[in-house]
Amino acid sequence: MDTPTGQTTSAALRGSLFRPRSVGLVGLSSDPARPTGRPLEYLRRAGFGGVVYVVNPMREEVQGVRAYASLGDLPEVPEHVYVLLGTDLAGQAVADCAAAGVKVVTVLADGFAEAGPSGAARQREMVAVARGAGMRLLGPNSMGLADLHSGAWITVNAIYSEPEQLVGRVALLSQSGSMMGGLISRAQAIGLGFSKSVGVGNEADLSVGEIGLACVDDPETDVFLLFLETIRDADRLAAFAAAAQAAGKPVIAYKLGRSAVGQQLAVAHTGALLSDDVVVDAYLRDVGIARVHTLDGLIEAATLFAGQRPLGKRDPVVGVMTTTGGGGAAVCDRLALAGARIEPASAPTIEAIRATGLKIIEAPMTDLTLAGAQPRFVKAAVEAMARDPKFDVVVSVTGSSARSSTTETMAPLIEAHKNGKPFGAFLTPEAAAGLRMLIEAGVPAFRTPESCADAVGALLRWQAPRAGIAPHPSTPRQGAVVDERTALALLEALGVPVVTSVEIAIAEAGSAALPFAWPVVAKVLSDAVPHKTEAGGVIVGIDGPEALADAAQKIAASVATHHPGVSVDRLLVQPMVSGLQEVLLGYWLDPQVGPVVTLALGGVLVGLYDDKSVRLAPVDEATAAEMIGEVIGLAPLRGHRGLPKGDLAALAQALAAFSRLAEHVEILEADANPVMVMATGVVAVDALIVMGG
Amino acid sequence: MDTPTGQTTSAALRGSLFRPRSVGLVGLSSDPARPTGRPLEYLRRAGFGGVVYVVNPMREEVQGVRAYASLGDLPEVPEHVYVLLGTDLAGQAVADCAAAGVKVVTVLADGFAEAGPSGAARQREMVAVARGAGMRLLGPNSMGLADLHSGAWITVNAIYSEPEQLVGRVALLSQSGSMMGGLISRAQAIGLGFSKSVGVGNEADLSVGEIGLACVDDPETDVFLLFLETIRDADRLAAFAAAAQAAGKPVIAYKLGRSAVGQQLAVAHTGALLSDDVVVDAYLRDVGIARVHTLDGLIEAATLFAGQRPLGKRDPVVGVMTTTGGGGAAVCDRLALAGARIEPASAPTIEAIRATGLKIIEAPMTDLTLAGAQPRFVKAAVEAMARDPKFDVVVSVTGSSARSSTTETMAPLIEAHKNGKPFGAFLTPEAAAGLRMLIEAGVPAFRTPESCADAVGALLRWQAPRAGIAPHPSTPRQGAVVDERTALALLEALGVPVVTSVEIAIAEAGSAALPFAWPVVAKVLSDAVPHKTEAGGVIVGIDGPEALADAAQKIAASVATHHPGVSVDRLLVQPMVSGLQEVLLGYWLDPQVGPVVTLALGGVLVGLYDDKSVRLAPVDEATAAEMIGEVIGLAPLRGHRGLPKGDLAALAQALAAFSRLAEHVEILEADANPVMVMATGVVAVDALIVMGG
Repeated sequence: MDTPTGQTTSAALRGSLFRPRSVGLVGLSSDPARPTGRPLEYLRRAGFGGVVYVVNPMREEVQGVRAYASLGDLPEVPEHVYVLLGTDLAGQAVADCAAAGVKVVTVLADGFAEAGPSGAARQREMVAVARGAGMRLLGPNSMGLADLHSGAWITVNAIYSEPEQLVGRVALLSQSGSMMGGLISRAQAIGLGFSKSVGVGNEADLSVGEIGLACVDDPETDVFLLFLETIRDADRLAAFAAAAQAAGKPVIAYKLGRSAVGQQLAVAHTGALLSDDVVVDAYLRDVGIARVHTLDGLIEAATLFAGQRPLGKRDPVVGVMTTTGGGGAAVCDRLALAGARIEPASAPTIEAIRATGLKIIEAPMTDLTLAGAQPRFVKAAVEAMARDPKFDVVVSVTGSSARSSTTETMAPLIEAHKNGKPFGAFLTPEAAAGLRMLIEAGVPAFRTPESCADAVGALLRWQAPRAGIAPHPSTPRQGAVVDERTALALLEALGVPVVTSVEIAIAEAGSAALPFAWPVVAKVLSDAVPHKTEAGGVIVGIDGPEALADAAQKIAASVATHHPGVSVDRLLVQPMVSGLQEVLLGYWLDPQVGPVVTLALGGVLVGLYDDKSVRLAPVDEATAAEMIGEVIGLAPLRGHRGLPKGDLAALAQALAAFSRLAEHVEILEADANPVMVMATGVVAVDALIVMGG
Repeated sequence: MDTPTGQTTSAALRGSLFRPRSVGLVGLSSDPARPTGRPLEYLRRAGFGGVVYVVNPMREEVQGVRAYASLGDLPEVPEHVYVLLGTDLAGQAVADCAAAGVKVVTVLADGFAEAGPSGAARQREMVAVARGAGMRLLGPNSMGLADLHSGAWITVNAIYSEPEQLVGRVALLSQSGSMMGGLISRAQAIGLGFSKSVGVGNEADLSVGEIGLACVDDPETDVFLLFLETIRDADRLAAFAAAAQAAGKPVIAYKLGRSAVGQQLAVAHTGALLSDDVVVDAYLRDVGIARVHTLDGLIEAATLFAGQRPLGKRDPVVGVMTTTGGGGAAVCDRLALAGARIEPASAPTIEAIRATGLKIIEAPMTDLTLAGAQPRFVKAAVEAMARDPKFDVVVSVTGSSARSSTTETMAPLIEAHKNGKPFGAFLTPEAAAGLRMLIEAGVPAFRTPESCADAVGALLRWQAPRAGIAPHPSTPRQGAVVDERTALALLEALGVPVVTSVEIAIAEAGSAALPFAWPVVAKVLSDAVPHKTEAGGVIVGIDGPEALADAAQKIAASVATHHPGVSVDRLLVQPMVSGLQEVLLGYWLDPQVGPVVTLALGGVLVGLYDDKSVRLAPVDEATAAEMIGEVIGLAPLRGHRGLPKGDLAALAQALAAFSRLAEHVEILEADANPVMVMATGVVAVDALIVMGG
């Protein structure tokens, strides 16, 4: 998504969005109970300090306020206009705003890119009009935004019909308008308030990334929560994540589409292109956005992440302290499933706890069940745990006292949190008052073992943005396959070791001079035959000139049968290569996130197990080595069960070289498969490349 | 865990546990704020109709009630005694109860089997005393029980200090005392009440299974929820599950120990033996207990399962209807991850909805977002969905109206539920009042997409108990390996095809007459060499008599080096067998659940992927075929990527035959590995069997 640059600075954009001097409501309904009638009442109740104008050509007065017939009739040009009209009328209203010199227009109507090709065309036109005038557009299909500090509740969201809104330091950016109310109401129930909430709708102009960038310097925001259905404007989202991380403001996302059905719905719902969830996951990690998988986890992560930076350790350690056996075990079980390494406290911590007369049982968690869970005992223990340098994160689990003597029980947790280390608490019983008390004091509090593990797991996996990622070439194109010789040559030029290949004429196969020993492989060489094996275009184990001549004729005949009309006259001849294991290197321009590289097992089990590593491309050798470590099926190469080890350093070099395909924006897709991994060295013996037209 | 039979009928046991005529409190503290002081106040507040006696030799009066010096001083023998004394004194108190003729004693003290060998010995002694007198024992380490209908709150659980307790038709049996309060408080917060709650403690005598069996006919209970840390008394738990299912009363379990850390904690906490979670999972499914994985899911499943039986379909279909795009997509995404097959409504349903003027978008879910979510529209849609014969389960998703106009929004959901089909609702915003309204009306209501998917997923996976499962031989024993020839013969006798083997003397290897062609394999034959390959005891590809003589000498020499002092003089000679794929059949007496059979991939990738199928043994051929279908890595045998198909019928026969090892209680463990699967037939080429001493 291109946006003209230099139009507005981030701060000016933030001002027009969230703190406009004046707001225009175009098409405000006279019925304040209808969504399109809500914003006026909201702005009043929120105490918005700017001027509000209502435009409605059908009435002289709406909800007790003078209605103007058109934007041109207003005494001034509103800085921010919310167009509440339906799909048919919204386009003209946006054009009117553009003509009048409005800074930001927000559009409620749906029926645009999410509604098929004609809607997408309407959307393109609307964006063109806005850009032509230097006006920024939020939406269409946007439920609007609310700034809790300025009172700019320029939104139809039902949640703001509730009088009490907790004001906090968390900004919520959501692609789903309806989910915003769900998240805000759930957050408020445990004491978490927001600084801003934005329903970004279709992101036709302003994307999550650009709005986020505009808010990185917002003095009222410490943490960003994203509810995502798809990834749009991937480069700017990455830039936002990097800027936010530099500013010490974590960005945490819940992304729909972990299942195939979820992906399908997200795409149908947003008009976006489909990407595999594992690719989205790699993108988020590589750009430095933490990912949670539950709604409660998203809300609870806000407090856990606030003020934190990525731990920056390969294998961080979690300490768990509990005053209730079952609750503690439930949390440990879930944390471990989320990949946490749970360890017992260090000896000095255990000693310090025992010195108070407390008994501890059941490593690896520090279980004080036997101590009777009295707050004065717990205080010493929890502080010793929070101070223990062995732990990167500490989780405390509290039993029935969280409910029966809330204030006394929460006090030591609030004290221990001041230590600064990530420290959170799970309350075993239903204890809304306890959760609120903790969260209002800035202490991460978890409602379930699952949300605790989700938020903590996200923190453990969270990384600083990886440097050197290639930008997303924006235009999707049609592609065509190049022949294998060209593909191998291209990979070789990047530094990927490839098998020696000799190109020969089919007619002269019997007399070809080969620079390597028999037996050899012969393959049809043609950009018109991408699936060589299926077309009978590959013969292996050829042991002499006569056999080669014979093979050449067979290949020609078989390809002619499979591809009538395609004329083939060339063969690629290669030596037979075997390795300890076959791997697959893959590269493609993902429609959502851009250049991506993957490593997986080759051979007959390809694709059976969800066992691959994915990164944004390119990767350096260190990252390539990390990727190799993530593929379970490569264990034999690591010496599993005493098997001979493979040359993983050479594989890392080859993978890093292969990932530099990202420097060639004309390449849409590439596979090196199989790549043979040997005791010394690796070699790609086949390759497929799709070039963009 | 053996229990004398015929001591008490189930109904009598249920009476003594939950509706005793009289209760004795031994060691009641004079401080009602201390756990050991709570039960008297609880029984008073609950309006318990029976007589309550207090025994405390140190005082004449406790909490305003006369205290007797001993049980013998009481005017009658209490039917149920709760011993509140510490570890040291509890044993004598139990002996006094036994001598006095008490029917049921509940013991609070910990420090028994969960606390190591000396505690285990104390526990055995206590059980022996009780059994000798025909008295039943709940605990030790039990927080007691509460019957919400009779007012028998014979418990120290802090949750009962709260005056309001919702009375319902759900019984909670928990191995964790502390988790009971957590579950009850969370359930009550969404309107779910209990009929009974029992903290079973160490299950030294009365187990979850036996208590459950006693409650299957309880007219006040419709559903059982179990919180399990381990599986004890597996056969009786299975009998309970079967009886409950016959009575139409679902049993749903949350079982700790999905991770290695969780298993370790569960074992440390309970003194139980370790079992792999996949085995526990197979056990629960095979005996007909539904399993959930979240605490909210356990609570919410109670209403979803009430009145239902297992769906009895191979691939049940879930219909999802939503009035909010984001919330619906979040639910679908999670449901699909939990294995649900989500499909669009059938044509008549869609027509019926459209006839009301509603638009529907975004298959596979029925999305009414565009319809404005007005209750009168929703009513027609939700009823059409609930009636649609295509769906086995229907989930409705509601947006902000669940919060803003709760009663109106819940009404059509309550109506649609009367249809009788499993039908539940997820409320996207925080909407405690809506959840309570639904659950009080008997409509399953879900707080999060994750708990919704957890409960619905458990319902989809839930099966009727599988017939013919072997009992759990109770005594764990030491075992010894038998030699390969004996092992193969044993498998052959069961009907497993095994490779032809000839036993020859090492000294006469050169002149042995073999009934099969060269090349052959020679293996050392000795029960003293279980790991033949590692000891250099296997040589393959032997192509004639001389080579065989040579191999025999090499094997003898190598084994002598690896096992000094072991004298070997026999070889097993077999033909070389190759197959399309190698599989592993495994069998063992699991310490928690008894005889278990497993199927997994053989070869170098063995154990790398968590890709195996497990069942209680024995299995019939149909179940064996199901198991084969569950192993992802066997896809090549199913013709994946055009590979030649294997004889899966023969594999199913072999697996079923192998699983009949369960008829041999003297066998502790067995592997057939590898078993070669061919285009026609299968054959086990090696086997290892451990016999109990």
